[in-house]
Amino acid sequence: MVDYIGVSDIQRLVQRLGAGAFMERLAGEIEADYRRWSEFEKSARLASHSKVGVIELMPTSDGRLYSFKYVNGHPKNTAAGLLTVTAFGVLADVDTGYPLLLSELTVTTALRTAAMSALAAKWLARRDSAVMALIGNGAQSEFQAIAFCRMLGIRALRLYDVDGAATAKLERNLRALPEFAAVTLVRCRSTAEACKGADIVTTVTADKKNAVIMTPPMVSAGMHINAVGGDCPGKTELHGDILRMPGARVIVEYEPQSRIEGEIQQLEPEFPVTEFAALLGGAATGRSSDADITIFDSVGFALQDYSALRFLHALLHEERGSHRKIDLVPQLEDPKDLYGGTIGSGKRARLRLTG
Amino acid sequence: MVDYIGVSDIQRLVQRLGAGAFMERLAGEIEADYRRWSEFEKSARLASHSKVGVIELMPTSDGRLYSFKYVNGHPKNTAAGLLTVTAFGVLADVDTGYPLLLSELTVTTALRTAAMSALAAKWLARRDSAVMALIGNGAQSEFQAIAFCRMLGIRALRLYDVDGAATAKLERNLRALPEFAAVTLVRCRSTAEACKGADIVTTVTADKKNAVIMTPPMVSAGMHINAVGGDCPGKTELHGDILRMPGARVIVEYEPQSRIEGEIQQLEPEFPVTEFAALLGGAATGRSSDADITIFDSVGFALQDYSALRFLHALLHEERGSHRKIDLVPQLEDPKDLYGGTIGSGKRARLRLTG
Repeated sequence: MVDYIGVSDIQRLVQRLGAGAFMERLAGEIEADYRRWSEFEKSARLASHSKVGVIELMPTSDGRLYSFKYVNGHPKNTAAGLLTVTAFGVLADVDTGYPLLLSELTVTTALRTAAMSALAAKWLARRDSAVMALIGNGAQSEFQAIAFCRMLGIRALRLYDVDGAATAKLERNLRALPEFAAVTLVRCRSTAEACKGADIVTTVTADKKNAVIMTPPMVSAGMHINAVGGDCPGKTELHGDILRMPGARVIVEYEPQSRIEGEIQQLEPEFPVTEFAALLGGAATGRSSDADITIFDSVGFALQDYSALRFLHALLHEERGSHRKIDLVPQLEDPKDLYGGTIGSGKRARLRLTG
Repeated sequence: MVDYIGVSDIQRLVQRLGAGAFMERLAGEIEADYRRWSEFEKSARLASHSKVGVIELMPTSDGRLYSFKYVNGHPKNTAAGLLTVTAFGVLADVDTGYPLLLSELTVTTALRTAAMSALAAKWLARRDSAVMALIGNGAQSEFQAIAFCRMLGIRALRLYDVDGAATAKLERNLRALPEFAAVTLVRCRSTAEACKGADIVTTVTADKKNAVIMTPPMVSAGMHINAVGGDCPGKTELHGDILRMPGARVIVEYEPQSRIEGEIQQLEPEFPVTEFAALLGGAATGRSSDADITIFDSVGFALQDYSALRFLHALLHEERGSHRKIDLVPQLEDPKDLYGGTIGSGKRARLRLTG
């Protein structure tokens, strides 16, 4: 039997800790895994593109555990009442090849993306950062807001979305949280207005095109830009000149993948970037002065999902009582008798329904 | 909600049709999909190797449906009472990126592999083939025996395995089937003895090494060799000289993958091979005379799993009554409100247990 985390389970697991604490702990797990970066088998994700979206597989392994995530990106889904991004993934035992856990990763991807964003900002943003602009107020935005307020001490959020209803929804959701009682929420009329006075700018827009959400005049000295929405070929958010600004430093997750999918797809392949893992090991410096502009060109990397699956698996086994399992793999008395133990068996399979 | 086929479900679905009929129908689906070979997005599978085994992801898409399979290969698992190969997979909608079906594929891989073997033999073996040697009597062997007796009219099986208990298990399972009442089962003491007088030789051994299960003296004119067990780098079954024998023709599933994983990994990269799809389209000939030696150098290709998942999904929806579904993807009233619709929801998630 394989452990199973569905939507109702992730809801329970996250609600037990609270979203902020969940993401803070997850960020710790991600950081711990990034510190052993060299142990991981890394590859650019395997993408299947269609006219309307992309389906990707993201595998990795540290030689003990193997994980992969299935994730899609379909910007037009929203119009049909569907999610832009859905995901699920599996954690498996390298020694036996057996899957250990199948988990929903739609909610988890939002949590781990925001956890990674806040973790990167802890390493890159100015220590006195207090104001964040949040451009794009869709499915990912609450997670970013909660993670940054908890982990970076953000006290004011400047919100903008082309869809005012999205911003209203974000405000409503954040206002319901006790930890946002003392956080100022400012509705802005444009990205430029939202960026004014921001120490950190987070962009989480969804269009599958080379958009120009931010231009150089919106960037001020000392700013940290957390560019999350541009994450596949032909899908970017920043004007390329921002990346080339004097004093700007671009940090990526896994360079070979980011060259294809990140904001840096707009630049020449030799454009210098720093991998996040190099900061942790001390091999590279992120911010060297309060005037530097740091840009986390985030596309999402398999290691973050590995960390999330490992963390979820541990949380599941911390719970008292039973959790759900599914019969995804046969349990046989004789492993050489797959036929006799399954379809050749006289035992009639019973139809079992699950909610 | 995503349709779910677990071990108990595949047991029910296959028992309803009977394993032979199931594989014959599945072979028809595979053939139909091979006839539109050019419509499929093809790539060599993404393999993660460890000292003791391999974990692979096998995606493909025809632009309407996307599928992938997770499959491991761990020859030493048997000693620990575990399966050498376990697998599961997903069928998804390309237009939305949403998963439609999660299915066990351990049993299904055995069924589709045997269906593919018999399909290839229908195109390659002599029409009067009646005797098959079956080398390796482990988890895959019953499936091969049933498919070949049903689809090729095999009347005698010559069995050999280094483990006599495996052969006894195979005999026991086949003897329980009415359709094997008139099939002769001959226990042999060696591969050489088993190959004597065989029209078709099927090799389904499991060691992860360059084994030499068959050598040229065991091959006779007109023979069809269905080489199934050699399927990853460093895992082969045939002496390389068999592939070079005069009158021999090597047929593979997808050349770029087979060059890495098939028996032909032993040969120079220019060694001529024919893709199975080319036979169906008439672009190439398999057997040109009754004296030819045909070798199906099978490693398993993603299209076959696509066909299997598509077939299973259709069978599931043919059934009266409800089938199992899992909450792998959130269903939201507002797709932009992932947070509010899941972990931000006041509705407390209930713990639901499934068998």
